[in-house]
Amino acid sequence: MSADGKGGQAGGDTTPLRIGVAGLGTVGAGLVKLLRANESIVADRAGRPIVVTAVAARDRTRDRGIDLAGLTWHDDALALAHDPDIDVVVELIGGAEGIARRLVTAALQAGRPVVTANKALVAIHGAELAALAERAGVPLTFEAAVAGGIPAIKAVREGLAADRLVRVGGILNGTCNYIMTAMRESGRAFADVLAEAQALGYAEADPSTDVDGIDAAHKLAILAGLAFGRPVAFSSVHVEGIRAIDALDLTFARELGYRIKLLGLARRREDGIEARVHPCLVPERAPIAQVDGVFNAVVAEGAFVGRLMLEGRGAGEGPTATAVAADLIDIARGNAVPVWGRSTDGLTQVEALPRAAFNEEYYLRLNVHDRPGVIADVTAVLRDYGVSLRSMLQHGRAASDDPTVADAPSVPLVLVTHRTRESAMIEALARIAALPAVIGDPAMIRIEAG
Amino acid sequence: MSADGKGGQAGGDTTPLRIGVAGLGTVGAGLVKLLRANESIVADRAGRPIVVTAVAARDRTRDRGIDLAGLTWHDDALALAHDPDIDVVVELIGGAEGIARRLVTAALQAGRPVVTANKALVAIHGAELAALAERAGVPLTFEAAVAGGIPAIKAVREGLAADRLVRVGGILNGTCNYIMTAMRESGRAFADVLAEAQALGYAEADPSTDVDGIDAAHKLAILAGLAFGRPVAFSSVHVEGIRAIDALDLTFARELGYRIKLLGLARRREDGIEARVHPCLVPERAPIAQVDGVFNAVVAEGAFVGRLMLEGRGAGEGPTATAVAADLIDIARGNAVPVWGRSTDGLTQVEALPRAAFNEEYYLRLNVHDRPGVIADVTAVLRDYGVSLRSMLQHGRAASDDPTVADAPSVPLVLVTHRTRESAMIEALARIAALPAVIGDPAMIRIEAG
Repeated sequence: MSADGKGGQAGGDTTPLRIGVAGLGTVGAGLVKLLRANESIVADRAGRPIVVTAVAARDRTRDRGIDLAGLTWHDDALALAHDPDIDVVVELIGGAEGIARRLVTAALQAGRPVVTANKALVAIHGAELAALAERAGVPLTFEAAVAGGIPAIKAVREGLAADRLVRVGGILNGTCNYIMTAMRESGRAFADVLAEAQALGYAEADPSTDVDGIDAAHKLAILAGLAFGRPVAFSSVHVEGIRAIDALDLTFARELGYRIKLLGLARRREDGIEARVHPCLVPERAPIAQVDGVFNAVVAEGAFVGRLMLEGRGAGEGPTATAVAADLIDIARGNAVPVWGRSTDGLTQVEALPRAAFNEEYYLRLNVHDRPGVIADVTAVLRDYGVSLRSMLQHGRAASDDPTVADAPSVPLVLVTHRTRESAMIEALARIAALPAVIGDPAMIRIEAG
Repeated sequence: MSADGKGGQAGGDTTPLRIGVAGLGTVGAGLVKLLRANESIVADRAGRPIVVTAVAARDRTRDRGIDLAGLTWHDDALALAHDPDIDVVVELIGGAEGIARRLVTAALQAGRPVVTANKALVAIHGAELAALAERAGVPLTFEAAVAGGIPAIKAVREGLAADRLVRVGGILNGTCNYIMTAMRESGRAFADVLAEAQALGYAEADPSTDVDGIDAAHKLAILAGLAFGRPVAFSSVHVEGIRAIDALDLTFARELGYRIKLLGLARRREDGIEARVHPCLVPERAPIAQVDGVFNAVVAEGAFVGRLMLEGRGAGEGPTATAVAADLIDIARGNAVPVWGRSTDGLTQVEALPRAAFNEEYYLRLNVHDRPGVIADVTAVLRDYGVSLRSMLQHGRAASDDPTVADAPSVPLVLVTHRTRESAMIEALARIAALPAVIGDPAMIRIEAG
């Protein structure tokens, strides 16, 4: 053990680790700032200096608040894979395809360690990239890809490595959590709050990656792969976003003692793995229900360790740069773990279970004509599919002074079920939606313990 | 990077890592159970099997729920330092001195990696042990020493290694948190709740290590050393326990919008490091205020990463064994980090700042005779020491039907100050305690943002 001079101790290699950074957006510029501001801390922790020697970005003239003098500039990021003056490639371009994928692939093929913050790339091509990294015998790390500054990957892949994890997930998208928190606090509609979040810079001009749950799904797929030691096929992750959440749902959730959060959840079952992203009702006293605004939270649960929750900033220049730099320190020390926590020998992607196999409690909100027999009709359908009810909310309509509103105005009807198989729920909902008294599509939100 | 076959990849050493376990109490027996129950998970994650080959404990005949057949038994734990059939010594005996210290010292001197859960040993002798480990070029790890199953040490020492941490701490003792939670929920007195906790096995027969804050101080000293890259002299940590907390304080805290938690807190200041353990009022909406019962929470804050909180089970067989096994997996893979996160070259212990240098907001509860002029007298003293008040609570005494209770019964008077230097507070409190209208010692609890 001591023969190789390891043990993370002094007296080892003190030559600088030379970094090439591809992409100088928020995270790339933040990394350069961090490595400069914390130069001596990083050198102490890494056992040697870590220096940026080359960068690649599209626009050389843009002011990023960092001095690029003395750095080699590459217009083509791919050149970093072979620049002889760098030891590690840091890919901060983003996107599952295109130049980011080509650069990471080329760097690994060239036997060069890679650090990336690219969640889409790792979620979608992680199995293939892990095999490349293993063949080359170099690390591929991505702490910054999940939950920003929270060392969630290290916690799951190393800290909990000895346990049989049964569940992993959490609040993985700060934009959605900000929007849901603001909707709850203000009573405003999704579109209003989204517009405000865009104005404040918390949401992109094209918000779909965030609000449709795709970003959270990338992160969930990565966490699930690490927790269960095997990459999860991204296409099999069930994804629903938050666009359909109505201010009414937040009001009813509160009345029932819940909050609504967009959660990513992966669970190990006897018959396979569940991996899903969707809004959830969580009990308002659950720790995860308290995580508001742009904060992220990662929950993991194992047979021996019990339940853990890690909470912090999931995005932004500083937190994300900290995560990238932590990966670089590990590499500088020669510390590494296989991409999915174990050798990829014989490791194939696992398909997550289909939606029909989920088994949850459900909150249903229907818009119904307020006339006799509606509840009987709806509950009869649920009974036919073996769905039993835990509670029901129907508020009498407000007395109207308007004599033209005489017959059957619409009112919301909220039902909460006991745990039931989602296949039954899907069929029951289709039948309920077709009832003459039901207006529009029923809203369905799953209920989680948190 | 790839030349040494590292990168945590396959194709490396697949010989088993052989473990000698000293101490077969709850954690030792739990570790043996975990390594057997999760044998294949651990082997996959470690890249090689991890097997217990030798054990040392006092009583060979005791039933621990584990089969000891096939293991070498040592009556003298020290023998593990030289048993030729083990690669790593796991010290689970406990105690800062005696056999635990001798074993860890001897094992490191023999060039053997050590894993320990011994917070007292690391807190008090960590500087000296780090130097020994570094000289031998072997790891000394102790993830289980702080916050049980929460990978707090890995998070602070590796995950946040690139940032300049300014603050670390949290709820570090589950027994105290259980007692404070039960006192708040039931309104009962400390002694009652302690007796119940002892009956339930949440508190020891001799509870002083827990309730006097010593256990939390051990953990805080370790966290502070890791966060600031330099061991903190344990004797300089300011420690107060929870025995003096009155049920009244919990009631007043609630009325003021706070909860009371025993926190360990270390802070980097311009003029040095604060390291202290004491009860705190924290705003009831702060995330750490929500962490109840036996749960622990570790908070860290850095210039780049912002604020993180990690929450989970801080003790118990399963969580603690998980942490020990995670350290073993790191060692099996050849991954290691210096004891205090950096080389010990020229690294001396740092003395934490004295109590007089603290600068806090304070909650004061006085027991005063209910007669005119008392408030004027008390507030005059505070004014003399430059302490300004933020709020005051005094409830009129309940009207008494007892004609013998006629003159000047005692009533509680609660004052909340603005931020002030503790040296001023100490002197002001001595003067206040000496006022004729003040009965007994004033209670003082610091207020933290959480």
